[in-house]
Amino acid sequence: MSRTTVSHEDGVIYEFAPDMEAVYEAEPGERLTIATRDSLDGAVQSEDDVIEEVPAEVNAATGPIAVEGARPGDVLAVGIEDVRVAEDQGRAITIEGFGLLQDHPDVEAPRTRMTPVEDGTIRFDDLSVPIDPVVGTIGVAPAEESYTTLVPHDHGGNLDTTDVTIGNTIYFPVFRDGAMLAMGDCKAAMADGEMCGTGAEIATDIDVTVDVLSDPDVAIDRPVVETPDAWKALASAETAEEACERANLDAMALLEAEHGFDATDAHLFSSLVGGLEISQVVDPLVTVRNAIPKEYLSEPF
Amino acid sequence: MSRTTVSHEDGVIYEFAPDMEAVYEAEPGERLTIATRDSLDGAVQSEDDVIEEVPAEVNAATGPIAVEGARPGDVLAVGIEDVRVAEDQGRAITIEGFGLLQDHPDVEAPRTRMTPVEDGTIRFDDLSVPIDPVVGTIGVAPAEESYTTLVPHDHGGNLDTTDVTIGNTIYFPVFRDGAMLAMGDCKAAMADGEMCGTGAEIATDIDVTVDVLSDPDVAIDRPVVETPDAWKALASAETAEEACERANLDAMALLEAEHGFDATDAHLFSSLVGGLEISQVVDPLVTVRNAIPKEYLSEPF
Repeated sequence: MSRTTVSHEDGVIYEFAPDMEAVYEAEPGERLTIATRDSLDGAVQSEDDVIEEVPAEVNAATGPIAVEGARPGDVLAVGIEDVRVAEDQGRAITIEGFGLLQDHPDVEAPRTRMTPVEDGTIRFDDLSVPIDPVVGTIGVAPAEESYTTLVPHDHGGNLDTTDVTIGNTIYFPVFRDGAMLAMGDCKAAMADGEMCGTGAEIATDIDVTVDVLSDPDVAIDRPVVETPDAWKALASAETAEEACERANLDAMALLEAEHGFDATDAHLFSSLVGGLEISQVVDPLVTVRNAIPKEYLSEPF
Repeated sequence: MSRTTVSHEDGVIYEFAPDMEAVYEAEPGERLTIATRDSLDGAVQSEDDVIEEVPAEVNAATGPIAVEGARPGDVLAVGIEDVRVAEDQGRAITIEGFGLLQDHPDVEAPRTRMTPVEDGTIRFDDLSVPIDPVVGTIGVAPAEESYTTLVPHDHGGNLDTTDVTIGNTIYFPVFRDGAMLAMGDCKAAMADGEMCGTGAEIATDIDVTVDVLSDPDVAIDRPVVETPDAWKALASAETAEEACERANLDAMALLEAEHGFDATDAHLFSSLVGGLEISQVVDPLVTVRNAIPKEYLSEPF
């Protein structure tokens, strides 16, 4: 089946807003290739290119793509089928005033390290790291407020979550007609936490399938990721503790719906299996996920 | 080779203190079985037994065990060879004013759920969870201050870290002569995060090997766990953000020693592989770990 490409040349956003104009309208079930540029819009091509401060526009997200028939209350399912790097090098950088160790005297900012692509790996000095791509920024039109592509929130956005990768599906609440999907800010590799503030930032082509789940059994307020082994509720907040609370409550709601638990039993059971994981701690909100293994949660929607 | 058992009947501590009297003196390389009672000292035997407030004494840690020849600046290696549950049921509980959702109106406290042991699993209603034990509290004598067994800190203590399990080795800085190892507070299963404040608390017999690494290549200030795939720096602090910073700095120090990186390159590289993980968010300090896959870190000590 043919696959339409939607490219950053067709349009990018630097803000997820309630009212956005689509650059493409997809049918439910349609397969697309999304071409993304790197999070720094090509500004860093060598180690001499350093970034003095966080740019006003960063994490260009290709789109938005309207999905036909998506209505508020539905769930948008985005299956990530493949992510191919589209340039021959990535880059990891420090920026003054950004990242986990921004106040540490031994950490220099700005610094740029290029990570050349070689045979399915990226190089960092004499170390080779297998390419394990991450779609850093992905989201839909929010309900009311607008959010720049620097931050994550209930609509998605700069989630920087390693599970948003090949083979997994990410589910978003639909807040606005058409859902209005956009994505970019990919990494050739990234640690959970994204401590310095970046992974190996790189342009990519992403193969996705978009679908609409109408009348879902469980309503969601925030993104959920499905991996081969688990369902993971994602939450972003000012502090890790607050994000952990929300992700735990969201995971509990899924357990309650499937098993008939009350909230207390869902809380107790959720403390026995899977658990909390760190997505990122630098954006500058914190994103965490709460994983429930599929043995205990079959098909929430 | 014969194996000595050190039991909670020989002695337990509820506080890791700089000056403690050993209940047993082990030789470096000695294999021991440590018998532990459950974290609630047997107070909860049915769902009618609820815990109204956090007990003054909790997480009884069997020991302390002096290890011959361990001197300040050394590293104590504790290999966890096996953890066997030693009773036919565990228990998960909520306590008022404790746990991640302690202020949530839908979460009732106190509540007790018993988790019967059946064929290598524990039961929670009609769900079976494979036994995957965790040694919740494990540590050594601190340098100066004393810490109750409710809290984690640089000496270990209530780390509640799922990686402290069968097949892994945990390394502690030695602060005091003999190291003075103690452990207890085991779980038959626990989620990362330990959200409700407990796992399935249970008495166990733990087979360990204790060893002393003198003159380590890298000094450590906090515990490090070795799994089959990774080295993980553990850090505990008031906030998750602070714990993440410490765990990142500790992991960076290991990378710097092996690869000759400066701190900035270690920070950048650490943002590409492995990454931050949540141990627990309720004790009431937060414990996180920063994992470096063994491909990039061979043998730090």
